[in-house]
Amino acid sequence: MREHVAALHAELVRYNLVVWTAGNVSGRVPGEDLFVIKPSGVSYDELTPENMVVCDLDGNLVEGEHAPSSDTAAHAYVYRNMPEVGGVVHTHSTYASAWAARGEAIPCVLTAMADEFGGEIPVGPFALIGDDSIGQGIVETLKGHRSKAVLMRNHGVFTIGKDAKAAVKAAVMCEDVARTVHVARQLGEPLPIAQDDIDRLYDRYQNVYGQRSPR
Amino acid sequence: MREHVAALHAELVRYNLVVWTAGNVSGRVPGEDLFVIKPSGVSYDELTPENMVVCDLDGNLVEGEHAPSSDTAAHAYVYRNMPEVGGVVHTHSTYASAWAARGEAIPCVLTAMADEFGGEIPVGPFALIGDDSIGQGIVETLKGHRSKAVLMRNHGVFTIGKDAKAAVKAAVMCEDVARTVHVARQLGEPLPIAQDDIDRLYDRYQNVYGQRSPR
Amino acid sequence: MREHVAALHAELVRYNLVVWTAGNVSGRVPGEDLFVIKPSGVSYDELTPENMVVCDLDGNLVEGEHAPSSDTAAHAYVYRNMPEVGGVVHTHSTYASAWAARGEAIPCVLTAMADEFGGEIPVGPFALIGDDSIGQGIVETLKGHRSKAVLMRNHGVFTIGKDAKAAVKAAVMCEDVARTVHVARQLGEPLPIAQDDIDRLYDRYQNVYGQRSPR
Amino acid sequence: MREHVAALHAELVRYNLVVWTAGNVSGRVPGEDLFVIKPSGVSYDELTPENMVVCDLDGNLVEGEHAPSSDTAAHAYVYRNMPEVGGVVHTHSTYASAWAARGEAIPCVLTAMADEFGGEIPVGPFALIGDDSIGQGIVETLKGHRSKAVLMRNHGVFTIGKDAKAAVKAAVMCEDVARTVHVARQLGEPLPIAQDDIDRLYDRYQNVYGQRSPR
Repeated sequence: MREHVAALHAELVRYNLVVWTAGNVSGRVPGEDLFVIKPSGVSYDELTPENMVVCDLDGNLVEGEHAPSSDTAAHAYVYRNMPEVGGVVHTHSTYASAWAARGEAIPCVLTAMADEFGGEIPVGPFALIGDDSIGQGIVETLKGHRSKAVLMRNHGVFTIGKDAKAAVKAAVMCEDVARTVHVARQLGEPLPIAQDDIDRLYDRYQNVYGQRSPR
Repeated sequence: MREHVAALHAELVRYNLVVWTAGNVSGRVPGEDLFVIKPSGVSYDELTPENMVVCDLDGNLVEGEHAPSSDTAAHAYVYRNMPEVGGVVHTHSTYASAWAARGEAIPCVLTAMADEFGGEIPVGPFALIGDDSIGQGIVETLKGHRSKAVLMRNHGVFTIGKDAKAAVKAAVMCEDVARTVHVARQLGEPLPIAQDDIDRLYDRYQNVYGQRSPR
Repeated sequence: MREHVAALHAELVRYNLVVWTAGNVSGRVPGEDLFVIKPSGVSYDELTPENMVVCDLDGNLVEGEHAPSSDTAAHAYVYRNMPEVGGVVHTHSTYASAWAARGEAIPCVLTAMADEFGGEIPVGPFALIGDDSIGQGIVETLKGHRSKAVLMRNHGVFTIGKDAKAAVKAAVMCEDVARTVHVARQLGEPLPIAQDDIDRLYDRYQNVYGQRSPR
Repeated sequence: MREHVAALHAELVRYNLVVWTAGNVSGRVPGEDLFVIKPSGVSYDELTPENMVVCDLDGNLVEGEHAPSSDTAAHAYVYRNMPEVGGVVHTHSTYASAWAARGEAIPCVLTAMADEFGGEIPVGPFALIGDDSIGQGIVETLKGHRSKAVLMRNHGVFTIGKDAKAAVKAAVMCEDVARTVHVARQLGEPLPIAQDDIDRLYDRYQNVYGQRSPR
């Protein structure tokens, strides 16, 4: 599990979602009230299975020599309150963060966005780091929402998934659609997709796509 | 053929036309009613000649252990209805998809665009995945058109070519001109190129350029 | 020290902050009135610990076979006048330089910016190379300012830090926020962050974040 | 010489100035009426000293198994008419080509641009490939101009230099300033630099900068 979560950080780097140490992946340990997360202030080049840290669902360090990511409280809050979530990702990826800086949801004008997010990507509240505010903002926004991504106002993006890899995929797709819709809107208004069509695309993608798993 | 089509996917990655698994290349098997295509939901790093799949022109799996790409029906429809086509590529590349999201054709304001596409890059209809709608939209738009690329509304781009490599080249050039014309228009209107000059450039490029093959 | 400063230039390349030879890192030699800096006109591929040069705080060459960077006088002026500074970085990174070309400070509309810079990133004066003008402009702008980065008008960005690595981090973060705020503003006005919240974020980040060092 | 010119094409790739085969470098053979240039339609990965071609100053193939670049006539015209030129580069780099598509010169609002180009980067005429029109447009625009780069209308950029490396540097810097000035203008007007200051910067850079050579 440490190895898997450590390796997934390379996807954040590959898709240019992070600079320096500003982004992190966590994954719930199956069958236990624990999750694996990036250590704080460690560069992506230096991440190894060994220096990943393990926390309980209150965000307390259980195993590891480094302090856990400064975003650990937000991850922990999500795991405590959304039992279906097995992975959480946080980034300040450029285009998603730009929508977040304006406090504007990304409208669903691409079929790939209907597939992955089932509609718009919503905006969560402005929240300061240091207590459960960020976690609460994520959970309030995403509970009962199709979207696996939330744009936290003036901050960045959090994504969730059934496991860490699905959350990473959501982070990659979120930035991709944030960028494409941004570029589209620079020269005019994108054409809307009818709600019916969004629903059909989302249903199909959740149930048919891929090799073995539905996502 | 499997090896060739597998290797061409690396060009999609190299030119940043795809993220995660969202893009695919196929190539017609010369002399047979078959084509090779990417398996569904498999990452570009994991593509090998062995896991590529072979389909008949109705899109049925003929050979391979994985399910074919979810876009297989569209590829198959093109091969059935455009016998001159030997390769098909589909991507959600950022700038081409942005034009597609607005449902706007890319005007021919670059000599490289006149060379490769012979004029504007047209927009195809909005079409849902699941039947022949996408394939029909591609064929209706490109039949009798000089352009080897079509911007499918709110979706992405499909390109065709005499073989898979030519279709990949068209996908690379489509994104390149989509980006340059976008950037040009951000600060004003690009100057038009006279139709006569577009015709001359297109004729010359189709007949003179390159080492041995006309394309 | 030469090895460390030489290696840090690779971060400028990795984060696309520089092209050709247009950017440089220097680091103060601990306990001595000396600093290590990039040689002039040498490409990043060719930088080695051996060809880095050592200068005194007047910018005179003390050790090394190459001429020091043409920006050495500005680095030297900073070290002479800001004893707390242990590292200086200069780049023409695209988005920071674009704000500098308009002579416009980057407003603090991202929590990451409050963390790292404690508020807006200010603009320094237009100054010609060749004497102490650039150094003076940097010091006048950054003395008593929270920001570790200054946008020199029509020129580029200079960043400072307690050591060379911290200055490189500031250069990376400066371009990152310059880009994100630019992108945000392309489609409307970013939402402001209250000064109180900026202060809280800055205080926390300077005192809590990371493994062992406060920055 | 073939080795040097072949290797310089890697810089076009490194700085993202080219896609597929759309860009080329040539270098005059010192002391002879010959130049080395890229073969037509060969990918950058496949370039070797052996497959580079040698042409005379009328653009005729003198040595090599491949056809010379389709832009050879333009390169040859420049060498015939500007004896001080030892290298020529042609690209369709995105931002430079976007200015060229609008037929708009890049204003000199960055000190790095004053250094390298001594003022604005001018626009050359619209010209079709196939005779000396492109070469004439380049020479007419650059003769007696400080700029080493010309934006050919609706086409792309040509740069010249005392040797092939200097021309490549000019191509890299041209795209860099084209991008930065574009980005600056997206959110307002860049501040002008006084002509006197441009002159001082240009003079200094041509005479002082670098290790041994003035450029």
